[in-house]
Amino acid sequence: MEFLNVHFDPRQQALYILDQTLLPGQERQIRLETQEEMVEAIRSLRVRGAPAIGICAAYCLYVLARDIPDSDPEAFLSRLSAHAAALKAARPTAVNLGWAVDRGLRSAQACRERGRGEMLEALYRTAVEIQEDDAAKCKAISELGLSLIRDGDGVLTHCNAGPLATSRYGTALGPILLGTERGMTFHVFADETRPLLQGARLTSYELQRAGVDVRLICDSAASTVMKNGWVQACFVGCDRVAANGDTANKIGTSAVAILARYYGIPFYVLGPTSTIDLACPDGACIPIEERGEEELRSLWYEKPMVLPEVKCYNPAFDVTDHSLITAIITEKGICRPPYGPALAALCKEAHEGKKGTSAPGENFLHL
Amino acid sequence: MEFLNVHFDPRQQALYILDQTLLPGQERQIRLETQEEMVEAIRSLRVRGAPAIGICAAYCLYVLARDIPDSDPEAFLSRLSAHAAALKAARPTAVNLGWAVDRGLRSAQACRERGRGEMLEALYRTAVEIQEDDAAKCKAISELGLSLIRDGDGVLTHCNAGPLATSRYGTALGPILLGTERGMTFHVFADETRPLLQGARLTSYELQRAGVDVRLICDSAASTVMKNGWVQACFVGCDRVAANGDTANKIGTSAVAILARYYGIPFYVLGPTSTIDLACPDGACIPIEERGEEELRSLWYEKPMVLPEVKCYNPAFDVTDHSLITAIITEKGICRPPYGPALAALCKEAHEGKKGTSAPGENFLHL
Repeated sequence: MEFLNVHFDPRQQALYILDQTLLPGQERQIRLETQEEMVEAIRSLRVRGAPAIGICAAYCLYVLARDIPDSDPEAFLSRLSAHAAALKAARPTAVNLGWAVDRGLRSAQACRERGRGEMLEALYRTAVEIQEDDAAKCKAISELGLSLIRDGDGVLTHCNAGPLATSRYGTALGPILLGTERGMTFHVFADETRPLLQGARLTSYELQRAGVDVRLICDSAASTVMKNGWVQACFVGCDRVAANGDTANKIGTSAVAILARYYGIPFYVLGPTSTIDLACPDGACIPIEERGEEELRSLWYEKPMVLPEVKCYNPAFDVTDHSLITAIITEKGICRPPYGPALAALCKEAHEGKKGTSAPGENFLHL
Repeated sequence: MEFLNVHFDPRQQALYILDQTLLPGQERQIRLETQEEMVEAIRSLRVRGAPAIGICAAYCLYVLARDIPDSDPEAFLSRLSAHAAALKAARPTAVNLGWAVDRGLRSAQACRERGRGEMLEALYRTAVEIQEDDAAKCKAISELGLSLIRDGDGVLTHCNAGPLATSRYGTALGPILLGTERGMTFHVFADETRPLLQGARLTSYELQRAGVDVRLICDSAASTVMKNGWVQACFVGCDRVAANGDTANKIGTSAVAILARYYGIPFYVLGPTSTIDLACPDGACIPIEERGEEELRSLWYEKPMVLPEVKCYNPAFDVTDHSLITAIITEKGICRPPYGPALAALCKEAHEGKKGTSAPGENFLHL
């Protein structure tokens, strides 16, 4: 079931990624060997999803380090820094990318006294740790999420918060994939998620490949499938959770939550504690990215579908009010209202448990 | 402002239609002269929207009748019947098409005694009447709808119920277009309306051409524009209204209604009394057409966006519960809850007012 979106083969010492730009039409794994190939792969979204980018970049730094000829530590670190800067510049707004690269760089610097071999070892260990840490978090979220649904349930999801964007299982899709591995059956409705169609291109692809019973629907058909009694729970990811539980996620998520409330269906948000931003008191503080009009006008199409002079409004995310959220599921536990104290307690626990190693906030930019 | 979706030029004695398959990229008027051209235009949706198809077909029958050489009434009517059958077969499920053609045919038969010239005159008069009757209804609906909004209001609409589908003004877009003609300003948000994109291709086109301030949004952005306080009313058309006010319309309409309720925004349904089906007690009796999976998979796209083995669920319409509808606006008046007695009274009035000439039910198939 495992999607090798990022895969380091230790025997070959080779880094592979699944080229996500070709999905769902083609599943092609490409090997990344040079800095140019790596930067291009990250920039062109061949690897996407903040956690996956971070994991990939950490391995990239290790692969590039192996090709540095210098055995003098300072010369080695100087070349390594140049590689790190190039990788980080590939997608400057991707928080996990810079965080993972910097973590790798620091791990090498920390053992400069012990020479080139030790530095390489530290870089490799860091990459593996980042990957394993993300996998462990996704697994914990998946276990907790799975406790909220029953065999045979219908689940509706919006956008993509699955394994392609993370290390394994993903967040919103995690309970479904974990339950399926254990022989359970779920009936999933995947919103296609205009305008970038992550639901059509990625979510339905991931679930179908994992043997899950998935049906793709237009975003506007969510009301009908809920009304038909086909949905027992909604699972969505999150880009940022404010201190009061207000949650930013892909545009349309708040509509799903309002429909779920109307039809009496529980609405669950799934994400690591690193997406909880206690510095942000509520949803009004979360900036919402407005993206280009061409995503509505012409993206994916054979010819433009809109008169060129028609204005388009294209916010990439929306904020779901905390009052519409049944529970927020993190790797540290399930939060229920009132969210203020519950989220603060979880973050405290997460911070104390793994100082300095947890991924940064905003690490689920699902584009 | 008037869209010449169907235009008969009396001086030239020529029938023109705006080729809607080329919208919004090209505005090309084509002249229909032969039966083959007419059948092809209707079949290929060059003219679409049930009222517009009915109007077009009535003029088609007249144009074809003019070319019948026979002056003997029986021979003339025999050839006319053959033309009528061919036109009706162009889109067998389009109720207004058969209704309009039959009405023309009957008008000719009714004056067979008075010869070819009188029969031609009757056919022409019938076409003009059908067009004028539809225009009058749309105008009345537009006036009543306009009374529900104020200058400067924001209005959200879903799918397309505008002039392209009718004779002029349309239904859901009527109040906006009429108010704009009178110098008022509205800020319209047009849902793009997946999967057939009527909002992108047609609604935003019609409104932009009419000088209305229109913004195209993804269906899933409706929640955000409502939350932002930008919407003071929702206007939608209808395909069928049950006796209790439950309303079938384009997929996603019920979601708009639920969002409007959540945000405290009035939700209005606009349509002629001919769409009220008193024989249908409630929404559960309205059959919902399920359309092909390719509309989600590949329609409009350069390449398929979904894995071929992923199943798609693609209902074309949904039913909005009467409890979510603030008012139903018909040419005979504004209906408010409780809808049962109000709709029955309106239908009685409409039926008594114009026996035998009103358009059939289901006359707003907006495809």
